[in-house]
Amino acid sequence: MRRTEFEIKDDEREEIERFLAEMSFGFLGTAGPDGAPSMTPLNFVYDGGKLYFHGSRIGEKMARLQADPRVTFMVAKEYAIIPSYFTDPLMACPATAYFKSVRIDGRAAVVQDPAEKAAALEAFMRKIQPEGGYKTIDASDPDYVPRLKGVAVVRIDPDRVTGKFKFGQNLKEPVREAVTDRLTARGLPLDAETAALMERYCPHAKGTLGD
Amino acid sequence: MRRTEFEIKDDEREEIERFLAEMSFGFLGTAGPDGAPSMTPLNFVYDGGKLYFHGSRIGEKMARLQADPRVTFMVAKEYAIIPSYFTDPLMACPATAYFKSVRIDGRAAVVQDPAEKAAALEAFMRKIQPEGGYKTIDASDPDYVPRLKGVAVVRIDPDRVTGKFKFGQNLKEPVREAVTDRLTARGLPLDAETAALMERYCPHAKGTLGD
Repeated sequence: MRRTEFEIKDDEREEIERFLAEMSFGFLGTAGPDGAPSMTPLNFVYDGGKLYFHGSRIGEKMARLQADPRVTFMVAKEYAIIPSYFTDPLMACPATAYFKSVRIDGRAAVVQDPAEKAAALEAFMRKIQPEGGYKTIDASDPDYVPRLKGVAVVRIDPDRVTGKFKFGQNLKEPVREAVTDRLTARGLPLDAETAALMERYCPHAKGTLGD
Repeated sequence: MRRTEFEIKDDEREEIERFLAEMSFGFLGTAGPDGAPSMTPLNFVYDGGKLYFHGSRIGEKMARLQADPRVTFMVAKEYAIIPSYFTDPLMACPATAYFKSVRIDGRAAVVQDPAEKAAALEAFMRKIQPEGGYKTIDASDPDYVPRLKGVAVVRIDPDRVTGKFKFGQNLKEPVREAVTDRLTARGLPLDAETAALMERYCPHAKGTLGD
């Protein structure tokens, strides 16, 4: 259940897009004709409100997408495991994890237009290889023409984009403060950033997000 | 398509289990009664050949699992983005990513037995909080009895467990060596480990894995 207190709002779309730009890979979920679910990890780019990935032109994934274009795509990053003893000296129950996740539900279409294929792959390269070091991908470049023909590019047209950024928004103030203090003291690589995100998404700045 | 040259073999099950023990979260894929796919990020534990996760007793995810228990669960870690210029001064095409992924296809069942629930949650705690700092979860402990009743524990009984560890196994030797050298020179946090994994999974140790 995507509990509403963790859902970020439509006006936080920019934040969702920043997260999708930062994350290099996600998971594509499909359902087969027999109703069995399937999943594939994929590198992707989210560009102009569309999600693109590329791969082999043949194979199980492409067959499934062509049989039923309904897909879900998810990207998530875990920031911190919060041990139970941060807030409870005895019971294991408060142990949890803080994370960001974004889910895109939509329809997949195999891109046929060479110009759109080239633009999507160029956007992908700018994302994963921002330092350059390659010839710009252009549909009219004779070096790229056969390569573009040989690769499949798939576009997901989103019907719904939702984000769940879980950073202790449901905690009462003294408990939240205890978690922030313990994170700061623990000092794992992402702990300081996690404490800052707890502060940022904290409900006392946004009354409606409280538990 | 899970290309066979990247698939690890049955006798590498131990390696798969080590990866599942190291990774704290994965993605549950389900298909709804209308055939639309759904996905949820979850913390989990793989214990005794079964995968367990816990959560709210009510909600969309539980309803879906009870309507159709067929699930897929995936765990993946990206080790390195390999820029195209590591092996090609001109074309963008060789750009790729090296990663480990494990996928479990199986059937979900809501655990009813309090002893199995307690054992699964205790295994989960030992995984995410190995330093302890909580009272052992025991189904007969009056402090835990109501908490165990209040939480749902789901078990996935695997039908199929597959791993895909992609570390350049399809590269010819001089190209593979170029990638290892460039990774070592780049020195991002996971680069040395990636180079070591390329060595470990390299086909000249295992003739059948070559491209």
